[in-house]
Amino acid sequence: MSLIVQKFGGSSVADSERLFRVADIVTKTYAKSNNVIVVVSAQGDTTDDLLAKAAQVNENASKREMDVLLSAGEQMSASLLAMAIEKLGFPVVSLLGWQAGFVTSSTYGSARIKRIEPDRIQKELDKKNIVVVAGFQGINRYRDVTTLGRGGSDTSAVAIAAAMHADLCQIFTDVEGVYTADPRKVKNARKLSVISYDEMLELASLGAQVLNNRSVEMAKKYGIELEVLSSMSSKPGTIVREAANKMEEMLITGVAKDEDVARVSIIGVPDRPGLAFKIFSKLAAKNINIDIILQSVGRNGTKDISFTVSHANLKPTIDLLDPYSELIGATTVLYDENVAKVSIVGAGMESHAGTAAHMFEALYEANINIHMISTSEIKISVLIDYEDADKAVAVIHDKFFGKPVLD
Amino acid sequence: MSLIVQKFGGSSVADSERLFRVADIVTKTYAKSNNVIVVVSAQGDTTDDLLAKAAQVNENASKREMDVLLSAGEQMSASLLAMAIEKLGFPVVSLLGWQAGFVTSSTYGSARIKRIEPDRIQKELDKKNIVVVAGFQGINRYRDVTTLGRGGSDTSAVAIAAAMHADLCQIFTDVEGVYTADPRKVKNARKLSVISYDEMLELASLGAQVLNNRSVEMAKKYGIELEVLSSMSSKPGTIVREAANKMEEMLITGVAKDEDVARVSIIGVPDRPGLAFKIFSKLAAKNINIDIILQSVGRNGTKDISFTVSHANLKPTIDLLDPYSELIGATTVLYDENVAKVSIVGAGMESHAGTAAHMFEALYEANINIHMISTSEIKISVLIDYEDADKAVAVIHDKFFGKPVLD
Repeated sequence: MSLIVQKFGGSSVADSERLFRVADIVTKTYAKSNNVIVVVSAQGDTTDDLLAKAAQVNENASKREMDVLLSAGEQMSASLLAMAIEKLGFPVVSLLGWQAGFVTSSTYGSARIKRIEPDRIQKELDKKNIVVVAGFQGINRYRDVTTLGRGGSDTSAVAIAAAMHADLCQIFTDVEGVYTADPRKVKNARKLSVISYDEMLELASLGAQVLNNRSVEMAKKYGIELEVLSSMSSKPGTIVREAANKMEEMLITGVAKDEDVARVSIIGVPDRPGLAFKIFSKLAAKNINIDIILQSVGRNGTKDISFTVSHANLKPTIDLLDPYSELIGATTVLYDENVAKVSIVGAGMESHAGTAAHMFEALYEANINIHMISTSEIKISVLIDYEDADKAVAVIHDKFFGKPVLD
Repeated sequence: MSLIVQKFGGSSVADSERLFRVADIVTKTYAKSNNVIVVVSAQGDTTDDLLAKAAQVNENASKREMDVLLSAGEQMSASLLAMAIEKLGFPVVSLLGWQAGFVTSSTYGSARIKRIEPDRIQKELDKKNIVVVAGFQGINRYRDVTTLGRGGSDTSAVAIAAAMHADLCQIFTDVEGVYTADPRKVKNARKLSVISYDEMLELASLGAQVLNNRSVEMAKKYGIELEVLSSMSSKPGTIVREAANKMEEMLITGVAKDEDVARVSIIGVPDRPGLAFKIFSKLAAKNINIDIILQSVGRNGTKDISFTVSHANLKPTIDLLDPYSELIGATTVLYDENVAKVSIVGAGMESHAGTAAHMFEALYEANINIHMISTSEIKISVLIDYEDADKAVAVIHDKFFGKPVLD
């Protein structure tokens, strides 16, 4: 007998027909003599509807009250799924975050799971119940309801899998797994059967949007094997686990693009020690994450410093840097939102020279100009013009995986 | 400084405009240096919408899961009202049933409040917060969510008022108070300024629908003064409290009708001791409440036994009595759904002879035939034809309160 955690996103439980599809998957897993814990998100547009309702009343509502409101979404989907499972004749119980023992930090709206007190879930499993847990929610030390922020249900699922020592954590979504590139754009993108945690982390942070990054980090930390698969098909998905030797003979696992990126350049920074450090400390103090950084020699012994931020952080960045750059004697601050980041990810590139050259060659052949480059052990990213992004993904995918077909 | 509990029903919080009207009432009460606890029902049609959603998935869903689903309704309205109060700049916190300390029996769907653990509410009041409590819900000893059944938010409010020793419990509804008759039918019905618990109980059970009966019983038990008033006007409502001497110089306080009634007659019951007892024990065993009972002498030394039940209980009653009446040798079982009960209620009638005669005179003058009569210390009820009910209320109201205007 295995313990399997299954997580279903909002689109998988959007209406009663889909609820029964999910109930079918869950009960078939249970019928194979498994213990099953199910984690659900709110149905379809429920969360957005609740956000709109709150905005009508108070656009600056406290995050505490927002969490009380939003957590009702998963409460409704969890009970409805339990009713569907009851209808199929299986023993089931739904549990809210506080019942399931999710103890979180106090940060309303983006709480972090501190621990799971597993007594109640264990008791229900011992009674041979299928346990449906409302994802995305917990309680903090004040015994107030918290939510984990967007994508938090993935994290709920992995945290439960870790706390209960589950054998497998299946994340059901609307794609069939993790692909070598976005299958909606690159027709011959291949589904990966296995990918390592680190590769998945790089892909998730690049906007591949399959798994919430926090959930992958947690899975890695606790060694929980994940499977990403579709609730609409019965095909096996992609397993995410610790990298094994010769896990797959692939040099890279995927090509991804991230459109939520803007380039900021501070031109003519005087060449004094510590100035770059001061600039980035100021940004860090405002919780602005920066990504690719490039420092180049400018005119008259000055430096140009460029980096990328997300679109949401662009305005705060400019607001902060405009007066400050004047203060330190820089010439000007420029920015460009019309860019995109395209990356290749693969644990294999560590041991293969020439991967970067391969990538740049593909871009060169397609006449795509590279603005900035950044590399890590398992990732190479380039910043290019926004309008070149899809083409870049296609030609890079072609170079590594064979001829792609553009959508 | 007083502690005031204010309860708002579903129609009072149905949309954001109404939420702000409620927030205005609450904050004005708070601004007069009162501690305020607010109890809310689910918004408008939320509960019905959730019931419909559940029915789509599983018409025989367990009551446990129904309670998880339904309690989301008050969760949403409580947080939205808190947001509206925040918007007006007042300190506020919403609490769910389990946070507010509502410990109930285990009966899902119609749980009874066993006790309120007041620590959390007291802590929030000490912090000078307005406390918004999700009505209608609690947790049982399994730490599962329960609901109190329809009208349960009234009970939530009175229970909190009792537990916290509140000075007043205001029940806001869509009428301005308790009237001598239904103001939608009898134009010159008067609003009562005061009514006793017992009178209110009789009126509530007669379908006056202003206050949930359980809440009045609880208010009586704990001596909580209730005020029934409208959230749409600023007029004082009706105070419900222990009967005082000369509280009001009125003989009767109101005339009410109840249309949810059917008459059942067992004809030709043999005149053996204990048969009536046996019949009514059988009905009690099926949880069928019976109301007016009449026993009359039939032909050939037999008896006819008549009584009334609610419409919902009619079929189970007939199903039970048809075979049983044959068994005991009765002739037949008849029933009539086309009846209504009209009653007058008043603590004053105890000390005034002739009240019943007055009532019957009014009906006689209007040529309305009486089928059955039942009396208690503060109530006289008659069973009449359904089509005479509105007219009966009008002519009785006329007799006791002066000329009415029929709607």
